[in-house]
Order: sequence, then structure tokens, then C-alpha cells
Amino acid sequence: MRAATKPATAILRPYVAARADFESGTDTPRKFLERCLASIAAREEEIGAFVHYDAASARQQADAAGERWRAGTPLSSIDGMPVGIKDIIETADFPTGMGSPLFEGWRSERDAASVVALRAGGAVIVGKTVTTEFAATEPRGTRNPRDSARTPGGSSSGSAAAVAAGFLSAAIGTQVVGSIIRPASFCGVVGFKPTLGAINRGGSHDALSQSSHGVLAASLQDAWQVAYEIAARAGGDPGFSGLIGPPSPPAPKMPRRLAMLETEGWAAASSEVKDLLLGACAQLRARGVSVVTGADHAGVANVGRALGDGIALARRINAWESRWPLNTYRDRAAGKLSAAMLQRLADAEAMTPDDYRAALAERARLRALYADLARDCDACVTLSAPGPAPLGLQSTGNPAFAVPSSLLGTPSISLPLLSVDGLPVGLQAIGFEHGDADLFAFAAWLQQVLDTTS
Amino acid sequence: MRAATKPATAILRPYVAARADFESGTDTPRKFLERCLASIAAREEEIGAFVHYDAASARQQADAAGERWRAGTPLSSIDGMPVGIKDIIETADFPTGMGSPLFEGWRSERDAASVVALRAGGAVIVGKTVTTEFAATEPRGTRNPRDSARTPGGSSSGSAAAVAAGFLSAAIGTQVVGSIIRPASFCGVVGFKPTLGAINRGGSHDALSQSSHGVLAASLQDAWQVAYEIAARAGGDPGFSGLIGPPSPPAPKMPRRLAMLETEGWAAASSEVKDLLLGACAQLRARGVSVVTGADHAGVANVGRALGDGIALARRINAWESRWPLNTYRDRAAGKLSAAMLQRLADAEAMTPDDYRAALAERARLRALYADLARDCDACVTLSAPGPAPLGLQSTGNPAFAVPSSLLGTPSISLPLLSVDGLPVGLQAIGFEHGDADLFAFAAWLQQVLDTTS
Repeated sequence: MRAATKPATAILRPYVAARADFESGTDTPRKFLERCLASIAAREEEIGAFVHYDAASARQQADAAGERWRAGTPLSSIDGMPVGIKDIIETADFPTGMGSPLFEGWRSERDAASVVALRAGGAVIVGKTVTTEFAATEPRGTRNPRDSARTPGGSSSGSAAAVAAGFLSAAIGTQVVGSIIRPASFCGVVGFKPTLGAINRGGSHDALSQSSHGVLAASLQDAWQVAYEIAARAGGDPGFSGLIGPPSPPAPKMPRRLAMLETEGWAAASSEVKDLLLGACAQLRARGVSVVTGADHAGVANVGRALGDGIALARRINAWESRWPLNTYRDRAAGKLSAAMLQRLADAEAMTPDDYRAALAERARLRALYADLARDCDACVTLSAPGPAPLGLQSTGNPAFAVPSSLLGTPSISLPLLSVDGLPVGLQAIGFEHGDADLFAFAAWLQQVLDTTS
Repeated sequence: MRAATKPATAILRPYVAARADFESGTDTPRKFLERCLASIAAREEEIGAFVHYDAASARQQADAAGERWRAGTPLSSIDGMPVGIKDIIETADFPTGMGSPLFEGWRSERDAASVVALRAGGAVIVGKTVTTEFAATEPRGTRNPRDSARTPGGSSSGSAAAVAAGFLSAAIGTQVVGSIIRPASFCGVVGFKPTLGAINRGGSHDALSQSSHGVLAASLQDAWQVAYEIAARAGGDPGFSGLIGPPSPPAPKMPRRLAMLETEGWAAASSEVKDLLLGACAQLRARGVSVVTGADHAGVANVGRALGDGIALARRINAWESRWPLNTYRDRAAGKLSAAMLQRLADAEAMTPDDYRAALAERARLRALYADLARDCDACVTLSAPGPAPLGLQSTGNPAFAVPSSLLGTPSISLPLLSVDGLPVGLQAIGFEHGDADLFAFAAWLQQVLDTTS
């Protein structure tokens, strides 16, 4: 493995942990923001995390939050937190370009449901973060702050990079295949993809059946708090319960039993990262956690086998569901769609309604099989990616480890606990439907036990 | 009851039945369209069914369809059919005003999924039909072609009126409470609300969890064919199976047992229309169909009781799900929202996520209860409205009879089989999830047996 550039350790301290300082005046949202703006000034030109940002507006928002903290009337625990919005999600004050030349400069003139909720909670909307084309695969030039010769992953490229570079405490991302877990892993930040439907996607252009909004954050606490404050105000997707859990980050809780999942990504993972995961499992066993694998638990083996063709299944489902609006975009200006996007449309148009129904039935079967594991295990652990971010910006990397929770609709968290040659690799915890809070509690415990870097 | 204005009987002959004439050249799509355009010229000023229409473009589309029929290469059975699109649904060639001053003249520059599918099937998109404000309750002046002093119902006001007036063979509508079944009843046309998710809502601004796209049509055959041709090309909503059924209108089939449902609307229904329904049931029994009621079947009684508070439940669910984007519209220009819309937003903002979850749980309970009926009954029958269209344009009328299938997510069809003083009232057949084709077969049989007007 190539000797790594020394990673920048620019991750911000958890915003929600600064509460006492904001109350006492030792720190202020404005000072917090100024540290972010200094990082942006120093590195944004190199990283390219933002499509647009507005420092002056952010300062005004932070000052208003500071006054509320001083008055003892913060709007929420994230009042004043600097956040970014993936550019597939509408905001009233910035264009929403969706990573596509077709939408460059397009303005919806309204905030998405999650953005309305963030503003109502006092969050400082710093800017729009770079997404790949329509939140799919075509990258848009963002570089990895840990090594700018490498991809930050995608599709939430700018959201992960901005947090990793200390530009923001958190940023909203979306995941339909690997778009939160993978960039979190490559950039060394926390990534949280909630239970399907937990965060209202109104005003976001990722209307696929397994797409979820989630959070990339500098800390586990910030990730929970941002998701909570959005869901408390905007709810989940229509027809879904929305995020279920407490108003403060769940306290660490030791799991009794974890399942180690290999997933479809295992074959692509280097022996080095596989050993890191196995080492982590050994540490957990030493602490008294039962960690079962496909070799010693039939349910885990079944799930592992069933997920073996997950990428292809997810792609079939996503292709069919992308047929529209891609067909309208092709008719309008095919030259403004990437080759990958035109291929996705061609794949979709080769499918029949029955092909799609068969894919849905297969996904439902996987979900039922996985749900059975909850009787025996508190959560699953696996890698977040087959290795550190690959060199080059032409691909956002292998999503295989992120696919299971996308297909299953279950919550998952990438924790920046592993590293290879100084480059981060995420350890992923996958929970069960609506068990988002439990998963955070287990993840917090895993972090306490496994994080030897802090 | 007030003596009725003599209804115009302008309904077009079924388009799909004209196939042989198009093939032989006895009739052509262009001639068919010209008959529609003549009706439009005669009555559109009085009725106000369209927000926009384009006769020149329609003629071009019809001519192209005519050439395909002559060549023996029609794109589908609806190639050349004159259709309208409810103005909550995006079209590339017309603005999409959503019945709101906030969106007057707004252009999305793309076709919704259903519109792409219709064009691919050769349908002639004549224009955009009037919707109430955001497909909710505030009317926009369309008059009922059966008596222009009366409401056409809503929210698919223009779609129903345009078909009733012979302007179109069919028009796309949407229903979240009563918006297809009610205007179909008031205007004396066929209304079809499919199983939840059966028709792709991509590019339509009715993103509520129980909203469905459906069809208002001059005949049962046209209604099926339009729904089929859309679903075959655009599928259903992401994550849903889409409409299931054959490529041609299902043949009439006698049901063995029907449940007569009173629903929450019964108390508001006049004794005259109740007697009409009871008379229809007696006719069916005379034909050998078992018709059970809440008085003699415990399952029917249970469903009846459970649906007793359906309107309030549907309104709670819809209010919460409308919070966004209404909150953004209020912030932008509250004066451009109706009092009813501002009240809906206020209702939503008084709700908590737990209130919404409780409403979803109640809806799920109702769905399970209703699904049980399928073991015993082929379909349910009831009225489509408590009486003929009320006088005046200030309200779109009572939706109570339409609420059950909206809440339940089941298919329903309004058949123009009853009348009071010459004004139409629909007889409604309600089926079971994914049983859309069976419901059409039963409805076709009901029409054969009960339609004494033709």
C-alpha cells in the first residue's frame, strides 16, 4: 500500500458538547463559525467541498444564535451549528444544481423540509455541498481532505469532505447505495444513514424507494442531534413513522451479541483491513461481547448469502425508479448527461414492470431474513469500505459494504475507528428498523472501547 | 329536491371501441378530436375546465396518430386519444399552476412520469385541467356541465368537467380524500382511483402518503386503458408494484358476493339516493348476487364502524404531511394561500410526530380490518356521494363516501348509474389491494345489469 499523506486532523469538537461554553460565553457560535471559516479559507480552494457558500450570511445566522444562547433561549441544542446541505436538496437562498449541468444555477425558491427544520432549530446553513450527478456515480471534482490525491467518495462527496476538513460540524447527505457510509469511511468522519423514511425528503431530488437522508458529522453526538432536530420538526417521509429516539444523544451501551457480516464487499477488501475488523472483533470479545459470524451462526450465514448479489439488485431497483425523470432529461439535452447516467437509463428501459416487481420481491425477502437476526443479535458490524479511499478523482470507489443497509432499509453508522497507513477506514455498525437510537448507543460504546486514536 | 336543469349528454363514445374505425379509416383521431374541439368551442367559456389548452398542438398530435393507425402501427390502443392533465401534474408544454396564485405560470420544463407515458402511447395531450388549490379544497371556478349552477366537485374539478362536457375522452386526476370519486359522481363520468402506488406520481405535486393518480373517463374501457398504458410505461410509485392487470379492459364478470357499505357519508345522504342504492342492491340480489350489509355480516359491520371517523383521520394524516411545503409557501407569501390552506397548516403545526404515528397506526388497523373482508366478499358497493352536486361553486361538496378507499389504499370506481331529478350520482364499487382488474370486471358487470339509461 502506498505510503499515505499525513491526514489533516481538522475535525471539529462536537458542537453539542460546547453547550456549557455557549451558555457561559466562553465560546460562541460566532467564534465556532469563525474557526470553520478559517479552515474554509485555508483549504476550500484545494478541496472543493462546496458548490456555494455564503460567509456573510453564516456570520449573521451565527450572531443571532449567539444572542439566543446568551439570553438562555436557544432554539435547540444545534442552535448556531454550522451545517451544509447536499446540493440535491433545495434551499431558498442558494441554487440547487444536483451535480448536473442541466440544473446549474436552478433555483426552487424554497427550502426542503429538512432545511426548514434545521433553520427552525437555529442551525447555520453555511452552504451547499457538492454531490455527484443526481446523487449517483459521476464525480464533480471534490478532493479528500485526508489526501487530496484521493476521492472523498460519493455521492455525498462535499458533505463528507467539508466535515473532514473542519469546515462544518455536520452536513446532510443522502444514500441509496453507498452515498453516506462510503464517503464517511473515506474521509474519516461519522456517517449516519437512518431507518428508511426516518427523515422527510420533501424538496430533495432523491425520490428512490431505498433512498434516505442522513448526516455526516464530526462526532456521533452531533450526528444524532442533527437527525433528531430535523425529524422532530419535519417528521419522516409521508407514510413513515420518522426517526424514533430521545432528544439527546443516546448514552453508550454495551451490546450483548453482535453479528460480524462479511457482505459482498469482503472479496474486494484488502487483507490488511479485514485483519483490522477481525482485530476489533477480538477486542470486543475480550470485553465480553459475543461476536458471531457466518461460520458459527446459521442466521448470519443466511443473511450473508442472501446479500451476495446486493449491488446488482440495488442497481436494478434504482435504474427502474430513475427512468423518470432521466428520460425527460435525455430528451431535453442528452449531451448534458454523463455516460453513466445514459447507461442507467438504458438499463431501465430494458426492464419490464415484472422485472421490477421481481426485484422488489427479492428485496422484501432479504428484509424479512435480516429482521430475523434481531432475535439473536443487537447489531451487525462490518467494514464501511474495502479499504481507504482510492487514488484519483474519476471514481467514488467501491460501495459494496454500504449496500446492505441501503437495501434493507435499516440504520447504519460508519465510525472512523480504523486506519491504514494513516488513512481512515470506517467500522460500520448496522442496526434494525426503527432501532436507530439503540444503534447509536452501541456505536457510542464501540467508540469508547475501540478508539485508541483519541 | 330542486328541479334539475336537463343534463347535457355530451359524453364521448369510448375511444378504445373506435379502434376498428380508425383502422378502416371510417373515423380518425383527428375527426374524433374535432368533435372534442367543437364541444370546447361551444362550452368551455361557460364551464372553465381548462387552465390552458392548445388546439393547434392537439391537431398536430392527432394527425400523427392518424397516420400511425393508417399504417397499422399505432403506439397503443389510446394512440390519438384526447386527454387532459390535472394542473397539479407537470407538463413540458404548459405551465403547472397547482391551482395556486403562488404558481401561476410556473414551468417545470419537463413532463411528469404519467405524461411521458401517455405521450409514448400516442395520447393527444389537449391541455391542463383545473385543480383546486394544491389539490385540496379551495375551488377555482369550474362549473358542472350537467348544471352550470353547480360545483363539478373537486379537487379534480376540470378533469371531471372536461370529460362530462365531451371535451376529452379521459383526464388524469388525483385523489387523497375524495378528489376523483366525488367529481366523477357529480359530473356523471367514470372515475377510477387505483390501488395506492399503482401509477407513478413522479413530477406531480401530491406527495401525500395516501394520494393516488387515477383516471376520469367517458367509459369504463377508456378508464382502464389509460391507467394500463401509463403503468405499463411508467410503472407505479417507487417501491410499489404498479398497476397489475391485463392489456385490455377486463371483461364483465358477475360477483358472487358484495358488501354494501354505508360509510361515514350515510348520515348525510338523502333518503332518495339511499333508496336508489338499496334498489340497485335489490336488483343485484334478483340476479343472484349475494349482497351482505352490516346488519347481517359481522365483518362488514366492523369495517363500517371502523371507518366511522375516516374523514377526521384522513385530514390529520394529510395535514401533517402537508406541513412542508405549506410552511415555505406561508413564509414566502401567506396572502396567496387560502384561509382553508392556512388552517390546514395551523392544524399540522399543532400536531406532534407521535400524533402522526398514532394516525398511521389507526390507518394500518383499518387496512387490516378491511383486507379481511376479501375472504368473504368480491367487492363493496356504496354511493359515490351523498347526493347530486350541490348548488354553488364555493364548495366542492361532501367527500365522505370517497374517503374509505383513500384511507384504505384500495381501488375504487365510480359508475354513473344513478340519478336524481336528472342529475347524476355515482354508484361506487370498492375493491381490494392490487385487485384493480377484478374490480373493473365486476364494475363492467354492474354496468351491464344496472344501466338502464343506455
